[in-house]
Order: sequence, then structure tokens, then C-alpha cells
Amino acid sequence: MTSFIKHFYDNPPKAEWAKILARPNPGGADISALVADILVAVKENGDEAIIDFNSRFDGFASPSFEVTEDEIKEAVLSLPESLKKAILSAAANITAFHEKQKVDQEPVETMPGVLCWRKSVPIEKVGLYIPGGTAPLFSSVLMLGIPAKIAGCSEIILCSPPQKDGKIHPAILFAAHITGITRIFKVGGAQAIAAMAFGTETIPAVYKIAGPGNRYVTEAKQSITKFGVAIDMPAGPSEVLVFADNGANPAFVAADLLSQAEHGEDSQVVLICPDKLFFEKVDIEIGKQLASLPRMEIAVKALHNSVAIAINDASIAMDLINDYAPEHLIMALRNPIDFVHDIRNAGSVFLGDYTPEAVGDYASGTNHTLPTNGFARAFSGVSVDSFIKKITFQQVSQSGLTTLGPIVMTMAEAERLEAHKQAVSIRLDNLQL
Amino acid sequence: MTSFIKHFYDNPPKAEWAKILARPNPGGADISALVADILVAVKENGDEAIIDFNSRFDGFASPSFEVTEDEIKEAVLSLPESLKKAILSAAANITAFHEKQKVDQEPVETMPGVLCWRKSVPIEKVGLYIPGGTAPLFSSVLMLGIPAKIAGCSEIILCSPPQKDGKIHPAILFAAHITGITRIFKVGGAQAIAAMAFGTETIPAVYKIAGPGNRYVTEAKQSITKFGVAIDMPAGPSEVLVFADNGANPAFVAADLLSQAEHGEDSQVVLICPDKLFFEKVDIEIGKQLASLPRMEIAVKALHNSVAIAINDASIAMDLINDYAPEHLIMALRNPIDFVHDIRNAGSVFLGDYTPEAVGDYASGTNHTLPTNGFARAFSGVSVDSFIKKITFQQVSQSGLTTLGPIVMTMAEAERLEAHKQAVSIRLDNLQL
Repeated sequence: MTSFIKHFYDNPPKAEWAKILARPNPGGADISALVADILVAVKENGDEAIIDFNSRFDGFASPSFEVTEDEIKEAVLSLPESLKKAILSAAANITAFHEKQKVDQEPVETMPGVLCWRKSVPIEKVGLYIPGGTAPLFSSVLMLGIPAKIAGCSEIILCSPPQKDGKIHPAILFAAHITGITRIFKVGGAQAIAAMAFGTETIPAVYKIAGPGNRYVTEAKQSITKFGVAIDMPAGPSEVLVFADNGANPAFVAADLLSQAEHGEDSQVVLICPDKLFFEKVDIEIGKQLASLPRMEIAVKALHNSVAIAINDASIAMDLINDYAPEHLIMALRNPIDFVHDIRNAGSVFLGDYTPEAVGDYASGTNHTLPTNGFARAFSGVSVDSFIKKITFQQVSQSGLTTLGPIVMTMAEAERLEAHKQAVSIRLDNLQL
Repeated sequence: MTSFIKHFYDNPPKAEWAKILARPNPGGADISALVADILVAVKENGDEAIIDFNSRFDGFASPSFEVTEDEIKEAVLSLPESLKKAILSAAANITAFHEKQKVDQEPVETMPGVLCWRKSVPIEKVGLYIPGGTAPLFSSVLMLGIPAKIAGCSEIILCSPPQKDGKIHPAILFAAHITGITRIFKVGGAQAIAAMAFGTETIPAVYKIAGPGNRYVTEAKQSITKFGVAIDMPAGPSEVLVFADNGANPAFVAADLLSQAEHGEDSQVVLICPDKLFFEKVDIEIGKQLASLPRMEIAVKALHNSVAIAINDASIAMDLINDYAPEHLIMALRNPIDFVHDIRNAGSVFLGDYTPEAVGDYASGTNHTLPTNGFARAFSGVSVDSFIKKITFQQVSQSGLTTLGPIVMTMAEAERLEAHKQAVSIRLDNLQL
């Protein structure tokens, strides 16, 4: 039998997991010097550098690169009604889910007269990056723009590379339009990140940059953090892990694996299943479903590097899943809710047979900007949290300081910070006058 | 009159603010190559490298560098009861404030049959860094360890450089002990960050590293993010901005400025006040209070680089404050609560005459690990949030998919991701059988 998923392991020992599930090294040349040069060029020459890079990298030679109101109107008119309606429905679900995420912490009186609280405050200026490439990722506009709007960011700008015709795909412009993003720039790659970090004559500098991108974009995002600009998270190739039991539908599982595999040749696809027989059923289904896919070649290459693992003990399977920390985790189980408690590392989780990853990619309401490459061990996906910061406040009354002050003084003295002690004692002395 | 704060500006125009309030460039040699070498050495040679660096950098030549139970017992016994009591009171306040921070998002039914929720899950393995140097920062142990414990992190380790006597200060060990941190390593600087990022024979690798540090530590923290390890935030010199009105007590204000200035020569101290007369009163008070400070020399140097600005319009003052984005903001005003709404960029805020920064540094309950260097525009201070990630879940019923599915299919088709569409259609077809 020819397998599409080339690598199958039958209950491998734990010691081998890391090797079996190793993410591919991105390889390729070191691009850090190249990206550093782009950052410097944009920092020093502003718009001039942007125009130059647009011409060299995207074949877009134009002195103006901000999307005009007319272009947005044209995009809104040109888009099929059915797509507009779908985008609006998705936006409504994403809004419904994300608007529950902005919560302030109620004041806590930690001691009588010592009141402490946290307040969520929007990050004022944020920049969103939407990649170009083969598919116009208008869904990412919703996934970044809606939480930023709900957070209350006052300035939200968007950069996306121009297509060959010098335009941005109308679905991207429509999604930006309904999200309330008004300033959109035709700039891609590391130069877009640099422009949003440093500002140019046309593009305003922002405090935080969010959004997916290729290696150049990721390298640029990580580099600009050294200049005090925040980023959402580092991004790697997309991933799915499907955990299927014997009752799962092999055709559904195959479809889920394929929908991850079509993203790119470097997509990570992992199947955990009860036994070899189940794997073979899935593999046969993959063969059936592949034929109709326009991105078949990409999917075949991604599957070639993919892994199926039979594990006959669910608790061992959960350990492996937590070790791998998948971006997307599909629990194709009869009793998925029973396993929720055991999930420690994952980006977004899809429970049951009728919750394919595709629903979360577009429209269930959860965010699809998620931690890849094992970062789910420490990072969350994008949410309203990504666009706010929480400022702490405290207010101590005179009597509160009488109780709290001596504690502070003792600790300050032990840390040899006498002026800290004095800032309390001078007030307590004043109260005793 | 000789001023301690050398730079005074009287209602400067907005165009000059950026220049007046520019943070100092850290300057000095580029340490990135040096830090990169340390990272590689630890990654390749593990414990051997740690032992070598301990000997070279901290004069601690010992093959074992994990703090023993006996050392902790000894520390607990050696510490004065008054200090232990103060630390326990501070820990109680910090616990009271932070334990309100862990909240799950209730499920949202974004469409009938489409259930989405978020769950807070602890980051399993975290590493805390506590600097050495002139003052033993045991308070930072509480500020990092307590939120990590409340988050539920299962492995919390701590690194701190050995003193000249090969020990860690007993107050640091006591604070770690009462927080429940059991594995403590005598390792400092970039090598400590490297050890926690990559793991050595003795020190386990962690998923996230938090804590303050010098330039080498900061550079190492930023570098290890490229290896997929998360960090709390980049750290710079500590800062305070005091916003005083005419009713403020110049002696209190002077004490607050001094308690920031004593941290280090590079401390940033800014005073916003109504007029030059008030500034002069504060400056005289600084002179009076300086004399008794053991760290006088450091404070004088820090004040030398500090800035006082008279602004006679409170709303303009708030704009300047938000532009500067101070780590600590003291509102020495008659009606501080009225201004809370206008604070957009700050780390932690101290309201009124009896809330000196020192209370938040130690014991009010809020966290003292805060964004410096203007990062308050985009970053929050450390909280329980810093030690959890939020995993999203979704569960779609069969009827839910009937409504949601067509939306997803339309969008997937428009993004040219046919397999995404198929993952839905294959299920909808199955439902119609």
C-alpha cells in the first residue's frame, strides 16, 4: 500500500517522541543581515525606501501606496454578495466571542485602607500585517481587527503587500472596511514591519504589531522588539494534531488533515489514532479526497512529511499531545469533554466530529491567530488581551499607611534602600504631628 | 541656587517634549556577540559552562550550585523575626491582589449550536531570575513567585547569582521558601538565562523566563525568544514620574523622587508641577533629605540627569504623561481619582499623598515588575496573566454546523482553500444521508 502520510509509528516509547515530532528546522540561508538592512533603510529613508522595496520585491512602482477611499468603495462593490454576507456573519460571531474578553479587576482591599485594582486600557496605536501570496487572507483581517476594535485602540493601521496589479484583494479591503480600519497601506514583508515600527512620512509608527507572515516578516517582528515595539507572537508554519478514537469517521479525519496540509508544504500534520487499521482507513480517504483539490501538490508534499502515531492508551496520547503543544488540536473522540481537563498545551481545540478546524479558521468566533511551533506551551492566541495593557492602581489612606508603612520600612531597610524607607517614614511622621 | 534636579522647563511646547523626556541610550559596547557566546557555551556544555562562568564572573568556584535544603533552613533561622513577619505580610497582600486575576471566560454560544470558550491553563515550567548586586531583591521573589504559584505552574525554578561567599542572601531564600519555590540555583547573568532556556544536567529547561536584570540578562532574554522561550518583558532602568499640584507636600514629593533616584545612576526621575516655585521647594527638600541616605552618591548622579517640568494646565500634563508612559506614576493631587480616566500609558499608578511608590515596590499587593522605557504603551506589568496561557475551545453540534458550515465554505472558497471547504462539506453531506 502506498501511504500519503509516510511516517507511521506504533506505540512508540516516550523517549522517541521528541525525535518523531520534531518540527522541521526552517533551514535556508540566514536572513537576519538582510532583514536588518531593510529595517535600517526604512528607518533612515522612510517613504523613499518603501517605494523602492515595493518596486523591487512586489513589482509595484508607485509613489503613493496608501489605499484610497475610492479603492475601498470599488472593492465593496466588486465583491459577490454571498461572500460579503459570509464575512459579515463571521465578523458577528468573532465579535460575540471577543467582546466578553475585556474585563477589569474589581478593587481589592488588601489591608484596611489599602485599595488596589487593575484597569484594562487599550494600546493606542497598533499595526496589523496581512500577508499576500496565493490566498487572500481576509479572514485574518477580522481576527486581528475585531479584537483591536473591541479593545478600543484609537489608531489601527493595516499593511499588506500589493498584488501584481498594484491592488490589495477586495475581500481584504472589505474586511478592513467593516472592521472600521481606515488606513491601509500597500506594503509587504520586512519593510512593512519596519514602517509600522519606525514610522515613515506616510505610515504612522505604532506601539504593537500583530499578524502572520513569512520568515522575513517574522524575523523583522522579532528584531523590532529590541526597539521597544511589542509584537503578538513569533509565527511558524501552521499545524494540526488530530486525536481520533475508533468511533471517529476516517473521512472526516482525512478532510481535517488535508485542510491543514493545503496551507503549505511546511504545514505540520499529526494523527494520533488507536491502531494501524484506523490509520490505513484515513490514508485511503486521503487518496479519495485529494483528487479534487486545486492545491493537491502542496498537500501531498506536506503529508509526505507528516506523522501518524497509533497509541492505545488515551492518557499516554494526552501526554504526547501536551509534549507537542499543537497550534490546532482536533479531539475526534466520543467523549471529548472528558479530556478537556487534560489539555495543557494547545492553541485552539476543536471538540467532536462536527467541529472541523475550518470553523475556527473562519467563523466559529474564536481567533485563528494562534501559537505555532510549540509556543502553545507559553503563549496564547490573539485575543482582546493582545490589544490592551492592564495598568495597576493603588490608593492608600492615612490609616492604611499606618498599618502598611512599617512593613514597607522593614523590607526597604533589608534591601538597603533607605530612601524607600524614608518615603514612608516622612509621611508617618507627618501624620503624628 | 544649586539645584539637585539640573533640568527645569517652564511650560515647554509639545514639540520639545520628546527631546526633554528622551530616555538615555544605554550606550556602552555592543554586548550581543558576548551574550551570544555565553548562550552557545551553555547550550553546548551545560553544567560545565555554568561552573566555568560562575568561577569567572562571580568568583564562585564550586561544582555544585543548587541551593540545598540545609542552606534554606539556615537562611530561615538566620533572618530576623521582624523581617520575616514583614515579608509574610507583604506576601499576604500580594496573594490577595493576584488571586483575583485568574478568570476563565464563560462559554459564548456565538450561533445556535456553536459554543466557544477560553480556559486559563498554567504554563507548566517557568524560570525566575533575581539579580544580585548591592541590594538583595527578595521582594522580587514574591512579585514573581506568588503569581506563578497562583497561576498553578507545576515547575517553578529560580536563578540568582552567588554572593562573594558563595551563598544567596537569606532573605531571597526565605521569600522563595514561603512562596513554595523548591529548586534554586546559584547562577547569574546571561548564563542563568541560557541555562533556564536550554536546560543543563542540573537546571531544567523552562517555557518562560521572568524577572529583572542588567543589560546582559536583558540581551540574553531577548535572544532566547528566538529559540521559542517566552519572556515577561524587556527591562530597562527604573522610572518614576510624579505629578504634583500646588497642594502637594514638597517633602513627600522629594522623598518619592529620591526613592527612585537611589535605585541606580541611570534611574529616570521626572517631576511635573504647577510652577517653578513648587519645583524649588521640592529641590530644597531633596537637599535636606539626601544627607541621611547611604546611597546618596547614586541618588545625586541620577537626579543630575533628571527633569522637572512646570505645566500649568492639567490636561496638557496628562498628555505629556501619556507620551512618556512612565513605569511608576505618582498622582500627588487633591483629586487623583478624577484623573484615572485620562491615564492611558503607565505601569503602576499611586494615587494621593499617602501612596508612595515604595508601598507598591513592596507590599500594597500590586506587582512591582513593570514595563520601563516607554514599554508601558504596549506592555502590562507581571501578573497571574504572565504565567498562564488561554486556550480556546469550540464545540459545534450537528445543527450548529448546518448553520455555520455554509459561511465557512463560502469564505474558504474565496481564500482558495478548497480542502477547508471540503472538511465542512463532507460532514454536511454525511448529515444528509
